[in-house]
Amino acid sequence: MNTCPLLSRTARAQLAMMLEVCASPKPGNVDRCHDYADTRLEHFLASAILARPALERAERGEGGIGALIREAVGLTACHAGGNTHFGAYILLFPLVLGGDIAGACAAVRQTTVADSLAFYEAFGATKVRMLEDDAEIDVNDPAATATIREREMTLFDIMAYSAPRDMVAREWTEGFVLTRRAADHLCEGAGRQAVVSAFLRLLAEEDDTFVAKKHGAAVAEWTRREAGAVLAGERSLEGFDEECLARGINPGSIADLIIAGIYVALGEGWQWDC
Amino acid sequence: MNTCPLLSRTARAQLAMMLEVCASPKPGNVDRCHDYADTRLEHFLASAILARPALERAERGEGGIGALIREAVGLTACHAGGNTHFGAYILLFPLVLGGDIAGACAAVRQTTVADSLAFYEAFGATKVRMLEDDAEIDVNDPAATATIREREMTLFDIMAYSAPRDMVAREWTEGFVLTRRAADHLCEGAGRQAVVSAFLRLLAEEDDTFVAKKHGAAVAEWTRREAGAVLAGERSLEGFDEECLARGINPGSIADLIIAGIYVALGEGWQWDC
Repeated sequence: MNTCPLLSRTARAQLAMMLEVCASPKPGNVDRCHDYADTRLEHFLASAILARPALERAERGEGGIGALIREAVGLTACHAGGNTHFGAYILLFPLVLGGDIAGACAAVRQTTVADSLAFYEAFGATKVRMLEDDAEIDVNDPAATATIREREMTLFDIMAYSAPRDMVAREWTEGFVLTRRAADHLCEGAGRQAVVSAFLRLLAEEDDTFVAKKHGAAVAEWTRREAGAVLAGERSLEGFDEECLARGINPGSIADLIIAGIYVALGEGWQWDC
Repeated sequence: MNTCPLLSRTARAQLAMMLEVCASPKPGNVDRCHDYADTRLEHFLASAILARPALERAERGEGGIGALIREAVGLTACHAGGNTHFGAYILLFPLVLGGDIAGACAAVRQTTVADSLAFYEAFGATKVRMLEDDAEIDVNDPAATATIREREMTLFDIMAYSAPRDMVAREWTEGFVLTRRAADHLCEGAGRQAVVSAFLRLLAEEDDTFVAKKHGAAVAEWTRREAGAVLAGERSLEGFDEECLARGINPGSIADLIIAGIYVALGEGWQWDC
């Protein structure tokens, strides 16, 4: 009864979002035991439920990645929790369209200018930082879409442009390597504890680019080193979590990668339920 | 952004299951802060996600109530958490089929012998106590289905048979009065706190028949009186919760009624998100 061999891709994506946000403690992020004032556990879970029609369309192979992300953002915009899964959608929609990492790698290379324009519509509806404030292509700049059209930038091109500063975008150009590593970390354990463990390991291995954009590179490096200190037994996980929460350091990109990793791991028989 | 006027019936049912289990503290039950050893928060949330195809079939008007409950039980049987929402399904499927309470009342009266037989198949796959151990119709007795056929008992007849000892079954015969009352309680507040408050009020007003079957009528009465003491400020909610958890007193039927109440309240514009 513990395995779900018949889980649809959509169900795997939804379970991945649910299992990630419930796992606790995850330093600095919303989890079972912590809310932020404006974004709470229920917002993440509502998004996991409400995104479903867009995920099902992806599973049926309907719609481009840009339009699917725009649809998911629209479906989950009915609550006041703001952006909950924008980064996760950037990983999940290629994975659901393509089935697995190999399929996702093929799907992202087939994106078009239309995907870019749909993506920018979705992006404009969120407050996500993805490009630098002084970047040449700024989502708040009406000229951005003109630039996309002129240069015929596909969504893959946009991600390549963002990749140096964004670890989620980088997954598109580097073959979902951190998604793969997250899945491998997960498969060394089982259940809730494996999610916490995989989160902490990835956080100790990589600077979270969401933290870097919000707080600067030094804070992202500090977060990585402190996660390593927790793994080395040099400080407590709970103390690290409390310090991150107090300072508003929420490693959102690592969380997105863990969601993608859970999706992949569930497809490979990982035991979430133990 | 706070209201979801376009929520489908299916989404309302799924959000209801999610919002109920997350609300905390709910004396004695699994919630955001408490698991039971065998049934955890993630099991309830997985069931809310995985039951979706059966809910959608109900929304399209396909399938009888018995077959829909059987389908939902099958869809959610892929985890080790056991029964999570059997009682809730008994309320939600008529509500989703019928749209609202009036529609649900009409739907339950149209059930057939086929609904009873499908329901008993689902019921046999769970460990739910619904009938007394010495009841004339016992789900573990192969003769039960023969009895159903001989007496031409519809699922409405089965619920009427169980109603004196089961407050969920009684909703079918008494017009979903406690579902209505739960929705009214919810609509006096908003968000997570309204769910906790509605749970506590219903628990103080009605003996939970699930508790009565598991622990006896005296314990169900004690639970109701203690909930009243919490509302009167005579004991702490947290202390009551801890005592219920320690004694394994989980008011599961009140939880089912709150889920049904949230479904109804969401359809009437109740603010879950505040």
